[in-house]
Amino acid sequence: MIVVTTQEELRSYVRKWHKEGLSVGLVPTMGYLHEGHASLVDRAVASCDRVVASVFVNPTQFGPGEDLQAYPRDFEHDCELLEAHGCDLVFHPEVSEMYPVGGTATFVELLNDMPKQLCGVTRPIHFRGVCTVVSKLFNLVNPDKAFFGQKDAQQLSIIRRMVSDLSYGVEIVGCPIVRDEDGLAKSSRNTYLSAEERQEALVLSRAVRLGEKMYKDGERSAFKVVEAMKAEISKSSLACIDYVSAVNLDTLEAIETLEGPVLVAMAVYIGKTRLIDNFIVGA
Amino acid sequence: MIVVTTQEELRSYVRKWHKEGLSVGLVPTMGYLHEGHASLVDRAVASCDRVVASVFVNPTQFGPGEDLQAYPRDFEHDCELLEAHGCDLVFHPEVSEMYPVGGTATFVELLNDMPKQLCGVTRPIHFRGVCTVVSKLFNLVNPDKAFFGQKDAQQLSIIRRMVSDLSYGVEIVGCPIVRDEDGLAKSSRNTYLSAEERQEALVLSRAVRLGEKMYKDGERSAFKVVEAMKAEISKSSLACIDYVSAVNLDTLEAIETLEGPVLVAMAVYIGKTRLIDNFIVGA
Repeated sequence: MIVVTTQEELRSYVRKWHKEGLSVGLVPTMGYLHEGHASLVDRAVASCDRVVASVFVNPTQFGPGEDLQAYPRDFEHDCELLEAHGCDLVFHPEVSEMYPVGGTATFVELLNDMPKQLCGVTRPIHFRGVCTVVSKLFNLVNPDKAFFGQKDAQQLSIIRRMVSDLSYGVEIVGCPIVRDEDGLAKSSRNTYLSAEERQEALVLSRAVRLGEKMYKDGERSAFKVVEAMKAEISKSSLACIDYVSAVNLDTLEAIETLEGPVLVAMAVYIGKTRLIDNFIVGA
Repeated sequence: MIVVTTQEELRSYVRKWHKEGLSVGLVPTMGYLHEGHASLVDRAVASCDRVVASVFVNPTQFGPGEDLQAYPRDFEHDCELLEAHGCDLVFHPEVSEMYPVGGTATFVELLNDMPKQLCGVTRPIHFRGVCTVVSKLFNLVNPDKAFFGQKDAQQLSIIRRMVSDLSYGVEIVGCPIVRDEDGLAKSSRNTYLSAEERQEALVLSRAVRLGEKMYKDGERSAFKVVEAMKAEISKSSLACIDYVSAVNLDTLEAIETLEGPVLVAMAVYIGKTRLIDNFIVGA
C-alpha cells in the first residue's frame, strides 16, 4: 500500500491510473478507523480497480469548542486496517498541506436549508467544512466512485446534492451502518465513552429499533414515532437529546407523515460525548 | 465542430478524449464572441489536443437590475468564429440544463475580501456566480488548461485563488487584453454603445495608457497614478467613474505604492453601459 502526504504525489498516482484506464474509488475518512470504514473499503475494492482512502482530521468542519484537538488518531492502526482490506493508496496530509499559510478563502457551501437542519442546528459551519474538503478530495482524485457511510446520513444527503449541483462526475455510494453486536453504531467517537456510558449509549440503537418497528407495524405519524423514540432515549439518565427528527431523505425537510424516502435521525449526548444514529425507510 | 447542449454529452466526449490520452483546453465564455475570445481559442488550440468552448450566459453571476436579459446573444456567429479558430466542441446549454428545477443550492465562494473589492462593491454576488459556474465547467470537462482574458482581471485573480484553494488540477492561462485599433478594449457590452458613446469610451484606454506611462516614467505613488487617471476619465462628460483602484494582483488588497505585481483596474459608466479596463505592472 502506498502512503502519500502531498497533494502532488496523490494527483500523480491517480493520473497514472486514469491514463491506464483504471477506475478509482475514494473513501474519505478522518482516521481512527473501525469496521464501518472497513466496509466502505471492501465495497470500493469490490467495484473499483484502485482504491484511495484519505485519513485527515479536517479542521474546517469543527466549530469552536468542538473536539478537533481531542479527536482520536492512530495512523499506524489505520494503515494496518486499510492494507488488510485491499486499499491501494492512503492520503495522509498535514493540515498545512490541505490549507496552506493564510488558510483557505474558498468554500463550497449549500445555501439552502439542508445544512441548517438536524446536526446543523448545533454545528452551523460543519457541512461547509465537509463540502469544501470533499470537493478538494474529488478535485485531487477525480474518482469514479466515492463511498460514504449512511451513519452520517445528513452528510450523505448533502454530498449527493453538492455532486448534482456542481456537476461532479462521481457516483456517490452510500453504505449501511455497521453496529457492534449489542447494537451500538460504530463510531470513532465511541472511544470517548466510559464503560457505564458505553452501556447507556445503547439507548440510541434501541430507539432506532423501536422507530423501525413502529413503521413496520404501520405507524405513519412522524410525531408519534419521534415522541416514542424520545421517550425511549429519556429512560437513560445519562442521555441528553440534541434532536430526534423525521425528514425527507433527499431534501432534509421536516415531514408529518412517513411517506416516500424518509430519514429518521438523532443526535444524543451521552455524558459529554455526542453520538448520532438513524434509520431510513421508503428509499 | 461538435455542438452539445447537455452535460451528459459534454462529459462523454471529454472522457473519450482523456481516455485516448489527449489534453483538453477549456475556454469558458458568455457568447457574443469577439477577437478577445478568439485569442483565447487560438492560445488553447496551440497548447491542447482538444479545445472545448462553453457559450452560456450564466444567470447566477448577474444581480437584480443588471443586464441578464439584455446581454447580447448570437450563437450562429459564435459557432462560425469558434470553428474558424479550430475549436473542437462547443457546449451551449439551456439555463435549465445547468440549474435544474429548484435551482442550485450549492455555491462556490471566496469568503475573504477578494470578491468584495473593485467590481464586487457594486456587484456583490457576481463572483460567487462566476466561481460556481466555472467549478461546474471544470467538473464537467476536467480540463488540463483553462483560458481566461486579462480584461476580467479580478475574475482571473479570484479563479486562480479558487483553483489553488480547492485543489483543482487545472492550469489557468491568463491572456492579454485585445483592443480595437483606437484602443477600446474588446467587450461584448461594447454593442450597447451609441456612436457618440463609443467615441467617449476611449477615455478608459487613454487612462490606461496614461497610468502605464506614469509607471514607466518612475511614478510609484498609487494615489498619484489613480488621481491622474480619474482626471483623464473625467474629461468626458458622458463618463461616470465607478472605481479606479490600484491593488495587489494576487490578493486584490489596496496598495499605496506600485511595487510587486500590481493591478490598476477601473469600471466606468459610459451612459448606461458599464465598461472595465485595466493594466498590470510588476508581474
